[in-house]
Order: sequence, then structure tokens, then C-alpha cells
Amino acid sequence: MGEYSVIGKRVPNVFGRSKVDGSAKYTDDLKFPGMLFGGLLRSPYAHARILSINTTRAEKLKGVKAVITGEDTNKVPYGIFGFTRDQLFLPTDRVRFLGEEVAAVAAVDEQVVKEALELIEVKYEPLPVVTDPEEAMKVGAPQIHEPFRGFLGPEQGDLSRNIGVRCKRDYGDVEGGFKDADLVCEDRFRTVAINHGTLEPYVTLARYDHGSGKVEIWCPNQAPFQKMRAISNLMQMPLNDVVVRKIFHGGAFGGRSETFAADLCAVLLSKLTRKAVKICFTREDTFILRQKHPYIIDIKAGVKKDGTLTALDIRLISDGGAYMSTGPIAIDFPSVVVESMYRTSDFRYESFEVYTNKPVRGAMRGHGGQQMAFAMDSLMDMMAEKIGMDPVDIRLRNARRPGEMLPSKSQIRSCGFTECIQKAAKAMDRGAKKGEHGSRGIGIGCSTMISGFSLGFRTPSSALVKLNDDGQATVISGLQDSGQGNETMAVQIVSEELGIPMEDVRILNADTELTPPDPGNYAMCTTFVSGNAVRCAAADAKEQLKAVVAQKLEANIHDLVLKDRKIFVKGSPSMGMTVKQAVRESFRSRQPVIGRGSYQPDLDMNTSWSVGKIEGQRTGAYTFGAVVVEVEVDRETGQVRLIEAAGAQDVGYALNPSAVEGQNEGSIVLGQGMVLTEDLAWDEGLMLNPNFLDYRMPIAKDMPRIRSIIVESMDQDGPYGAKEATETINIAVIPAIANAIYDAVGVRIKELPITPQKILAALKGQERKGVER
Amino acid sequence: MGEYSVIGKRVPNVFGRSKVDGSAKYTDDLKFPGMLFGGLLRSPYAHARILSINTTRAEKLKGVKAVITGEDTNKVPYGIFGFTRDQLFLPTDRVRFLGEEVAAVAAVDEQVVKEALELIEVKYEPLPVVTDPEEAMKVGAPQIHEPFRGFLGPEQGDLSRNIGVRCKRDYGDVEGGFKDADLVCEDRFRTVAINHGTLEPYVTLARYDHGSGKVEIWCPNQAPFQKMRAISNLMQMPLNDVVVRKIFHGGAFGGRSETFAADLCAVLLSKLTRKAVKICFTREDTFILRQKHPYIIDIKAGVKKDGTLTALDIRLISDGGAYMSTGPIAIDFPSVVVESMYRTSDFRYESFEVYTNKPVRGAMRGHGGQQMAFAMDSLMDMMAEKIGMDPVDIRLRNARRPGEMLPSKSQIRSCGFTECIQKAAKAMDRGAKKGEHGSRGIGIGCSTMISGFSLGFRTPSSALVKLNDDGQATVISGLQDSGQGNETMAVQIVSEELGIPMEDVRILNADTELTPPDPGNYAMCTTFVSGNAVRCAAADAKEQLKAVVAQKLEANIHDLVLKDRKIFVKGSPSMGMTVKQAVRESFRSRQPVIGRGSYQPDLDMNTSWSVGKIEGQRTGAYTFGAVVVEVEVDRETGQVRLIEAAGAQDVGYALNPSAVEGQNEGSIVLGQGMVLTEDLAWDEGLMLNPNFLDYRMPIAKDMPRIRSIIVESMDQDGPYGAKEATETINIAVIPAIANAIYDAVGVRIKELPITPQKILAALKGQERKGVER
Repeated sequence: MGEYSVIGKRVPNVFGRSKVDGSAKYTDDLKFPGMLFGGLLRSPYAHARILSINTTRAEKLKGVKAVITGEDTNKVPYGIFGFTRDQLFLPTDRVRFLGEEVAAVAAVDEQVVKEALELIEVKYEPLPVVTDPEEAMKVGAPQIHEPFRGFLGPEQGDLSRNIGVRCKRDYGDVEGGFKDADLVCEDRFRTVAINHGTLEPYVTLARYDHGSGKVEIWCPNQAPFQKMRAISNLMQMPLNDVVVRKIFHGGAFGGRSETFAADLCAVLLSKLTRKAVKICFTREDTFILRQKHPYIIDIKAGVKKDGTLTALDIRLISDGGAYMSTGPIAIDFPSVVVESMYRTSDFRYESFEVYTNKPVRGAMRGHGGQQMAFAMDSLMDMMAEKIGMDPVDIRLRNARRPGEMLPSKSQIRSCGFTECIQKAAKAMDRGAKKGEHGSRGIGIGCSTMISGFSLGFRTPSSALVKLNDDGQATVISGLQDSGQGNETMAVQIVSEELGIPMEDVRILNADTELTPPDPGNYAMCTTFVSGNAVRCAAADAKEQLKAVVAQKLEANIHDLVLKDRKIFVKGSPSMGMTVKQAVRESFRSRQPVIGRGSYQPDLDMNTSWSVGKIEGQRTGAYTFGAVVVEVEVDRETGQVRLIEAAGAQDVGYALNPSAVEGQNEGSIVLGQGMVLTEDLAWDEGLMLNPNFLDYRMPIAKDMPRIRSIIVESMDQDGPYGAKEATETINIAVIPAIANAIYDAVGVRIKELPITPQKILAALKGQERKGVER
Repeated sequence: MGEYSVIGKRVPNVFGRSKVDGSAKYTDDLKFPGMLFGGLLRSPYAHARILSINTTRAEKLKGVKAVITGEDTNKVPYGIFGFTRDQLFLPTDRVRFLGEEVAAVAAVDEQVVKEALELIEVKYEPLPVVTDPEEAMKVGAPQIHEPFRGFLGPEQGDLSRNIGVRCKRDYGDVEGGFKDADLVCEDRFRTVAINHGTLEPYVTLARYDHGSGKVEIWCPNQAPFQKMRAISNLMQMPLNDVVVRKIFHGGAFGGRSETFAADLCAVLLSKLTRKAVKICFTREDTFILRQKHPYIIDIKAGVKKDGTLTALDIRLISDGGAYMSTGPIAIDFPSVVVESMYRTSDFRYESFEVYTNKPVRGAMRGHGGQQMAFAMDSLMDMMAEKIGMDPVDIRLRNARRPGEMLPSKSQIRSCGFTECIQKAAKAMDRGAKKGEHGSRGIGIGCSTMISGFSLGFRTPSSALVKLNDDGQATVISGLQDSGQGNETMAVQIVSEELGIPMEDVRILNADTELTPPDPGNYAMCTTFVSGNAVRCAAADAKEQLKAVVAQKLEANIHDLVLKDRKIFVKGSPSMGMTVKQAVRESFRSRQPVIGRGSYQPDLDMNTSWSVGKIEGQRTGAYTFGAVVVEVEVDRETGQVRLIEAAGAQDVGYALNPSAVEGQNEGSIVLGQGMVLTEDLAWDEGLMLNPNFLDYRMPIAKDMPRIRSIIVESMDQDGPYGAKEATETINIAVIPAIANAIYDAVGVRIKELPITPQKILAALKGQERKGVER
């Protein structure tokens, strides 16, 4: 580690300056000559049959250039997986949630768009609405979907009960495990839909060029190559004709992973009008676009007196809203988190992705991990209390260790879980103090996470490293950066490998036309997968440079090192040449240096939903984290103040400690919002608070003191030992706060968010029951 | 040849449609938010000292955003070669030609720019002007340049006599050769400055981004990587920060090879104003920008009775205008054309690039070849007449043949010269007919050309071929296309190699940030050098695809062929898979297909001006051509009508016969203008006719019937045997027309253009002398 010049060092974000000085361009900053504005007409019903759509009046409005409905589309259904193709980007038969897009307009300005949308006449026949997933699962509930192309059928879904997909795992002898237990504990936990809260509202801009037949798309997105594929498929255009361009984006958190109806409307409107078309969402539209899946989790665990878990049985209902989206992942992934956290071979897990007449739920940071850890780690504390064990000790007793094989036959390799728990606990090792009005408490939460994931069709990441004749380099990679610093990481890696300063390296990324393919910035694979690809490409360029120098100087290639813009015989800096000279020499020898590299972890890609059971290596590396927090609860108001949080994560190796710490801090605060304040209010399918005033996210003054603890387990496969960073912190903080509130005032709230009302009500219940802490 | 699917076929230009329907964007089509317009203040004197420049009034004008003079620049001198750094992009001391840029303005619109330029007060002290190169070479002539950085000194230049650079070659025993001759003939020939006549006036657009420190430049240009290097050097910015973007351009013909003061002014103005700045030239500005070098050629040749050349002695004066530009090439290249055309080992050649107070002369199609061939091949006809030999026979007698070693020790490899002469002659094999008022005549001209050239620092061309998971490909190459069809060629090559139709291949090219380096679209190297690089990259991708299939099907990799979007065992189309399947398989096997290739001919790159003598391989391949034309000369008006032209060129192998024929036709007409009508009128340093009305280029109605004859010698190194196409035709047509005029009316005009006035004057002279044909 000490040998690195740039890797492992605190380096600033390579685009930090342009983001601060305003020169970084976001989609809404883009303007094109003659550009039109687009808008979407949304359903005012949560469930209704579309009887007719009359666009005549809208089309006649001055300034309107095109109006489209589902009839103008290819009617190719979409879904992320082959078996989830349940959605048309503009439906023709019925609407299934309030806010669903039914028509789109392109016009000369946004005012005309608004007026035109009002002139579209849609006749609906309202249908019975179901918004509660448990109600939706009952026989006789309104059925939201008819069978669609690719649907897996009764084994994994049951549309008559609105079950889009079901996931079932049964490992070992669960009933036997419960029999071996000294204590069996079970409970139900609930979470709600929350919003990603990206600062940038969604915006999508398409420019179709009739000369070349190509369409260019700009939008905040986490996976340009996935978006390219979806648009290619849905518009029935060759991949080469769909170009997703790089653009900065203001936050993602999973919510920018998919292709949305708006993207396709922009493309189609642009094609029809022969102009660029930009569709800007309002904040309300952005709230409706996607939310985190709300879960109902029934969890039952057996434990011995010494704290050893003997069995786990989990049943999970996910409220997926009107279309499946990432539902299959959302109901699978919690099992991954649970099995990789605590040791038990007797593990049963059943989960349901249920349709309701709510907006579509999709990926959001953790993708089910937060909800699951809330249940799991709340229950761990409840069991620890009952057997009289310290919460830290019960976790240490069960925490996964290096080399362990999970029930699903996926192996844990590097693992610093124990160290994370110990270090987070130690950092906060002091009794909770009483405040004037309130009580203080301390709580711990844990989590695990993955680095790349096996579900679905995945491409490796590839990268190229191009050298200029002044010795500077350009790294060309498909990797996307949503603000975490992935681009900076790629520049660091090339800088390290080629022995040139970071300012000598530029990055060109996330453009489906220019860059080689990359899976995308999700499933925590950018550092692990894309980072490795960049390292391979840079190492390839390095070998080419060394070969040039070795031949020119008649040196042994293995003796050469690259450092300080020079390539020289190790220990003899005078025996060598500059990188610039080597590049020029490569031109002279007619073999310009172009490094090429690819990476994909060796996963069992055949694990798929159609086989009904998942077994095999599911990720390149697991990561582990523990968060300990201190809260103060005001017994009079029920208000919770998060005072301090210590988050320790095994990141394998911190390529850029500043970036890891920044991510850690974001993770803590994101979790804080989910636990304490964030809640969408609904009136049936209608979202009542889609704005940042009524929907309360943490702001600067809410921030706790944060201690970031980096644990380094040096993963065997990660680039320089690195793996995913700090997503576990965002998960572990959820149960940590819930456990700390219990520690402070003795009330156990099992439904998120833990609002003052719920605390006060619980405190009153305590009083009524005369329960003392 | 019969085995190819796409190569050698008549295929349309891949961007033809977008050029026709108007969707192809040219620099002036680009607009950016807040974009400013730039303008240049030009000197009204051909030679003057700059006493002072006062920009105060201009700066105060409303709408003006920046005014710059030489004092605002880095004052880094520029020149194409290290020893030609004689120019500042805005001079501070003196102006050396009428039209030289002395200040630049950026403002909100072009009207304000115009007004601001008028408000800049420049005080000049006029200096003596010299515009005739022979006058300039006299002792005591006004000296235009003081010694500058890199100047080679008296051996190759003599600034006191305004000689910028001199070139001298002396091979064999020239005096001995003349002694062996039966006839020694000598004469003087002159040519004038002509303009490239690109339909698009010059325009340059720069956008400097303060966040990243990068500048993007769009302009019609033939060598984006050379422009990148020049701007990097002159603006003292790293290469990575200078991005020359691809943009279509409306003609080049050598005139878009260089970096101009306007480019640098746009960059500097953009940097200062933080806005995009576009500078659009008028047609007059474009005329002033660059012209073809006018030559005075004294040529002396010895010939035996049987037509064998015995010796050649040439002295050439090139009027380079105020700065050197491509002068060193302009005075070297004619020797290459001469020595590779006709066999003689006794060859002396001396040439001078002379400064005059005229605008700068630079590269133009042929780069001296036209002027030289005019002299050489006029003299050949004069000698043939004197020894009573047929013009075709004397050429066949002396024409270079395959394998011959030139005096400069450069070897001719593939060579179909004899066939070209024979086929062109045969195509026009009939007597000239007399018209009513005129006389008809037939003439022949010959030429040779190169495919890639050794002069100066050159980079190889590199290319990448990226495969999509739908089996389509993108070729990424630095190659530039000025309309010849180079992009189409690259697409053809990838299509051929990968066995997929051309519509499955997209090209991404000529962008210094995105694409690997390429020397540029000049010195006739795109097909030969860049084409080979693309072929290498496509072949690399092909091998990777084959490896995937071989492994999957357990087939022998050598038995596999790619055709019709499939990869299969030769002869067994059912044993294989589609390219799409193979790409997806490559993803599964974690090695996505990315082809990589580079090419540079094996030239003697050490040949340089500083050694004073050039010996070694100078080009990858020589090409050869012959043109036979029929003209009708009106004896009353002196008007010449070009009736028909047959151009035969050895192109190695015609990758796309339609493109070769299109080039052939352009070459004939371009030459026609140079011989018959194009002439710039001057009043000292002032250009009098810089417009398409007074400067007469051929138009549609002037076009002759054209026969394109393709000769294929299958070059050993060219891609599929191809080499440079049809530049020889543009050269050979010059003497062909001159010789045909002599054949028609018996007058030999030795100064281009051959105007009616000159013909009438010569005809009158004939009458006076009583000379009969």
C-alpha cells in the first residue's frame, strides 16, 4: 500500500471544480436550435379503463408540433427482465396508477405544452382500486394485470392475486433449527415508500437525426448501455442508432437506473418533429417516477442462550405499485443481505412482489437491504435483551467470517465484518447521557452488501487507455458516475499505473457511442467491475510503454518502473526515458500505445428466476458494515435527535479515503431520513406531499457528528483490494437508530418512519401498561 | 478479388444522404447558448511597421466582449516544421502581406464586430514592398524576415535574399548525361497562384470551458491531430485540453491542412469571454487565406534519338508569400514527381522557397506536382516533336516500371504506369477533327503521386472496432474525410472483415479526444495508412470473434469464415453462430470484442531538411496516371473548349469504383480550371478578384465528357492492394491540355493559365513569323 503514488490517497474529485463553478452541464442546461419542449398527460385515476383519447384540439393549438398517444407507439411492452414485460410506455387499454402517462405533447415552449395537455380529452371508466398489498393478494381483489408476454405463471406469480413474482428459498432444516433454539422470537416490521430525493428533477432530452437515423439521448442515468438497449428494443432501432450521451446528473441513488416512459416519449416526439425535444419533470413528477419498495416483513428467529442463531424464517411482501420494474430484485436481494450477515444454515425465505394501484417502485440505494436490516437487526436486539446479552456481543457471535459458504452456495471471500462491529462499537463506547427533557440512547445496526451481482444479462466492463504524444493519457470507459467519484477513481488508477500525475489523465466515459460497454452504475459494481477494467487497460498500456523502452534501451522489461512521468530501470532513474519520449518512440516504431482491458467477476450467471432456486456465486465480493449511533429522544415531544454516528465499513481497500468518507456521511444522513422523517402521505393512489417542504428530508442542521471508520480487508479480486464502499452504512444506520431509540426511552417502533407521534403514542402505552424500562 | 462481398463494389457514401437532405452539420450550422461572433482586423498594407494599435474605442462599443492584439498572445512563433517558425498569429512588429491579421474582436453579433473592427486604430509605417520572387531574391531587395527561431541558416535559406528555404539534389552525372544526349532542350515555365475554391468559406468555432480547462474547436480541417498539436503548442495548453471535434466540411483540396491565425484568435477570444466564439470568413478572406504556390521553372532535358531521357536539370523558384507555411514541401515534392515519372539517374534539382509580400501560400492538391508536370510534360512533347517521335511513345519509353530504384534511393513497388499511358491513349485513339471556327487537338499528360510521405514528424494511424451486443459494429478512427469517401471506405473495410452489411457499421472519426491518432487527410495517406489501420483493427476483432466461436463450437479457428452476419465453418453454414450470438458469448466469457490496429508505412523517417540531402524510402506506394484530352480552340476568339478527357490511373485496387470515378471527374475539372481560366489578379500585394464571379472556375456547363479508366496493380502493402486514387489525374491533365492546344493550333503557351488573350497573341506571332504548322 505504501508503494502507491496516487491510489489510496486523498484526492479531489476531477470534476469538482466544474461542479462548483457552474460550468458542469446538466441535461436542463442543454439547448439546441429549434429545440421543443415536451410534456406528459397523466392519469387522474389510480385505476381506470381508457375509453378514448381525443387529441384534435391540442393538435390545433398554435405552437404545438406533435401529440402522441399509445396508438402512435410500437406497442412493444417493456420490463427490465424478459418475464416482467408488463408495461407499455403509453398504455392504450387502461391506466393502473394515478400519474400514469397517457399522452405526450411537443411544442415551442412550456406554456404551450401545458395548455395543449389541458386540451387533450381522455374518457376514462374508473375501475376498483386496490392500494394495500395484503388486500391486493386476497382472492377477489381487483386484478390489475392480465397475463402478459414472458410472465412466469403460477409458480412464481399469480395475477389473480396480483402477485407479479414470488421468490422462495428453503435451506437446511428450519423447523429443526427452531427446535434447537432456547428462544424463538417473531415479529412483523413495516416500511413505507420513500423518494430518492435527488436534487435534480428528472429531465430527458432526445435529438433524432433524420440524416443518419440516429437518436441522441441526454438524461440523468446510471446505466447508459442499459438505456441504449431498452430504447433500441422499444423503438425497434439498431443499437448503433441509439446514442446515450454523457451528462452530469444531480443524484441517482438507484432512481436513475431505468428507462422511463418520458425517455421514449422524448425520442418519439423528436423523431416526429425533427427537432430536439426536452421533457423536464416537476418535483411532483419526480416523486411519482419511482419510490423505494414498502415492505411488510414477518420474521421469526431462533437463538441459543449463548446468542447463536439457530434458524431464520422470513416472509416478505413488497408493494411494487402498478408495474414490476425492479421488483424481482427487490424481493430477492433481502435474502442475500440476511444470509451474508449472520451465520445460519437453516434459512427459509419467501417473498412476494405485489401489484397495487400505486406509482411504480424501483431501485433505491440498498434495494431492500434497509427494510430487511430494520427487521433483522431490530429482532437481534430484542432477542439479545431477552437472553441478557450485549447487542454487540450477539452480533459478534453470529457475524460472517472470511471463507464462509452461504446457504445459497455463494462464498464470502474477504471479510472484515468482526472488525467493523468492534471498531464502530469502540468509537461510541460510552454510556448514554440524559438530557434536560430527553433521554439518550445508543444503538447498533449491521449490514452487508455486494460488489456486482449475477441477476439478469450483464456485460463486462471494458476500457481503453489512449496516450497522447505529450505523454498525457485519456481513459475511455463506459463507467457512469452519479457523484460518488467513479470518474476520479478511473483517473487515479490510470495515473498510478502509468506513473503520471492525475492532471495528465482525462476521462471520457458513459457515452454508448464512444465508449466500450459497461454494465452501469448500479448493483455496486463500478469500483469492482469498471475499476478492474480500467486497471487492466492501464496495465496493458503500461506493458506497451515498457516494451518500447525495453527495446530502445536494451533493458529487461521486468526491471522497468513508471514513475514521475518517466519509465526507467528500477533503482537507476537515469536509465530510462520520459513517458512522452516513449509515446513518440511508439509512433516511430509504428505501434502507438492503446491499452485495452475488460473485467467481469466470475459469477454463476445461470442463476435465474426461471429455475426457481438460486445457487452459486452471486457477487464478486461481499462488503460488511456496522453503525453505532447515539440519539436523544425528547420524552415530551417525541422528537428524536441523532447526535452522533460511527460507521465502520470493510471497503476492501480505500482507493480514495476522502471519497469513502463523503459516501459514508451521505449514507448516514440518507438513512436518518428514512428512519425518522421521510414518509409519503397518500389518499388512495394520490400522493399528497410530493415536495421538499411537506416531505421532510434531513437538512444541514439535522446532521449528526459522523465518524467514518474504514476497515480494509484487501479483497483478492478487487482493484488494489477495493470493493463496494459505504452502502452497508446506509443500511446499518436504519436499525441502529431504531435500536438507539429503544435504548433511550424503551419503546420499540416496528414501522418506519419512527415519528414523534409514534414515539409519544408508544410512551403513553408504556405508561398505561406501567411498563418500566 | 471476386471473393469480396463489399470491397471493390460500387457503394454509396455513408453520409451521402445526410449531405443531400441537409441534416449534415457544417461549422457555421453550430450554435451555442451565448455564442459570440469573432472578426479579424486585416492590414491594408502589404508591408509595414506597426507603430501602435489602439483598441480603446472598440472595447467601449456596446456588445463588444473582447478585443485582442498580438500583445495579448503568448507570442509563440509558429510554422509547420521546427525550422519554419516565422509567424506570430497576431504580429506585433510588422505586417508582411495585405490582409494579415493584426487584431481580433468578439462581440454579440456580426454587425457589432464589423463596427468594432472599424474603431480599432492602427498606426502603420509603410515599408518597401516586393511581390516578384525573382526581384525578392536580388541583393538589396526589401528584406521581409529577420532570422527567427529554428531558421536553418545560409545553407538552406538566405533571409537577406528572402530565401526561406532551399532544396538541392544532385544525382548521377548530369553534365555527362547531357553529353550523351542527341538533343538538349530547355525552357522556362511559369504558373500562378490559384485558389482552392472550396464551396465552404473558412469558418472556425472555439468553445473554451473554464471548468475543465478544455477547448473544443470545430472547423473544416484535414488533420485534426495536427491542429490539436499546433493549438496546444501555441496556446501552451496540454494536448489533452485541446479537442478538435469532427464536423463535415465543404471541400479542402489541401487548403484546410494548417492551423490559421483565425483558429487561434477564436480560441483566445473564447478563453477571454468564456463563451463560444465563431469566426466566419467571407469569400474574400477565404481567397486570402491560402493559395497554390506560383512557380518559375527552368527545365533542361537531354534525350536520345530513340526518346531515352539522358539527364534532367531543374531550377525552381516558388513564390511562397509572406510566411513559409508548407513551403519546404512545395519545393521538395516536385522532385519526387519528376524522378518517379521518367527514368533517369542523372538528375539535378535546385529549388527556392522565396518570401514576397503576398498572402501565404500553402498546400493545394498535388502540392507542386501540377506546376512541375506542366513544365516536364510540355518539354517532353517539345522534344518528341523535335526527334519526330509520337508523344505516347516517348512516354512509354521513359515511364517508370515496377521495382525500379529512384535516384533518391526510394523504390517503386507496384506500378501500372505503362498500362495507364496505353489505356488513356487507346481511349482517345482518333484524329482530331476541325470545327467551323476552331481547330481540334489531342494531348497527353502524365504524372505520379505518393501514398503517405516521410517528411516531418508523423504519427501512425490507429483504429478501434467495437462490437455491440446486437452484432453491429462501430469503427473508431482518427481518419478525416474531406468528401473523398474515406469514411465510407472505413465502413466498407469493417463490413468486409466482419461479414456484416455496411448498414451494421457506424463510424466515429476525426475527433482528437475520442479517436486514436491519425496523421491526417493529406499527403495522400488516408486510404493507404488509415485504411490499413482500420483493416488491422477489423481483422483483430474478427480473430476475437472467431476465437469465441472456435471455443464454443470446438471448431478449428482457421476453418471459420465470417459472412452474412454469421461465423461458421467454411462450407458448413449450419455449423456456426451469428455475429450477435458471438458478441454475447464474448460478454459471457468476460472478454468483449474490441479490435485494435495501427499502421504506418515503413519509411525512412530520418530524411529531414537538416541533413541537406534526401535518401531513402519516401512513400508507402507510388501511383501513376495518364490523361489524354481533346480540345477545340477557336482561332478567332482564342477560346478553348475541353471536349473530352480520358484519365487512367493505377490506384492499386479500387475499393469503391464509384468513389474513384467521382474523384477522377473532380480531378479533371480542377485541372481544367488551373490551365484555362483561374488566375488571381493583383495590384502589388492587393488581390483584385477574390470572388467566384471575377475568378473563373469551371462550372457544370464547362465539363467535358470524362472517361475514367481504373488500372489495378495490386500493391503489396495497400489495403486489399489499394493506394492513392486520382491525384495523378489532376496533375496529368495540366500538361495534357497544354499539349492538346499545341496540337490544335500550334502555339505553345508556357505560362498558366492559357487564356484566349495569350493564344490570340501567340497566333498573331505565328502569323507575323509566317510560321506554318
